[in-house]
Amino acid sequence: MGPGKAELLEMIIETGSISAAAKRMRMSYRRAWELVDTMNRCFTEPLVITSAGGSHGGGASVTDFGKSILEAYQAIVVKTNEVASSEIAAITSHLRQP
Amino acid sequence: MGPGKAELLEMIIETGSISAAAKRMRMSYRRAWELVDTMNRCFTEPLVITSAGGSHGGGASVTDFGKSILEAYQAIVVKTNEVASSEIAAITSHLRQP
Repeated sequence: MGPGKAELLEMIIETGSISAAAKRMRMSYRRAWELVDTMNRCFTEPLVITSAGGSHGGGASVTDFGKSILEAYQAIVVKTNEVASSEIAAITSHLRQP
Repeated sequence: MGPGKAELLEMIIETGSISAAAKRMRMSYRRAWELVDTMNRCFTEPLVITSAGGSHGGGASVTDFGKSILEAYQAIVVKTNEVASSEIAAITSHLRQP
């Protein structure tokens, strides 16, 4: 789990589809599908389930399990920003594209 | 910056070469070189500099700037583990390969 996968889950919750989520993130459908597949394979339960509907046509939803993983990730980000803001700034201030 | 890139920097510091660092991480030389290139391009200064020596033959070293970025990253990890251990456990306990 990282920022890209977390945002993808958020966008799937918002849009109800991997294809629409990918478009919002300016990511290819193929790349979004790969990220979903990686998450589903890495965890003991699926985070995203898809319903039939042909190529790019089906819907997708984030499972309750997926939502609990996303919430844990979001809490880690919030807490990390609270306790390590100076170290985060030390890194991000030296990024070309912050 | 993430766990893979941080470990790669640590291994380059230890071994003095991208090739040896890649081998330690059971990663292809090509992949390690790509990670180094990404880091050097994303930051305002190089984190790793390489010396000549032909294909895979040259040495590599982590710059003082790279070491400062690595140290900031390591501090973030330590602090995050301190404040968000339950959320981290909630995620890692559900990973197939922890």
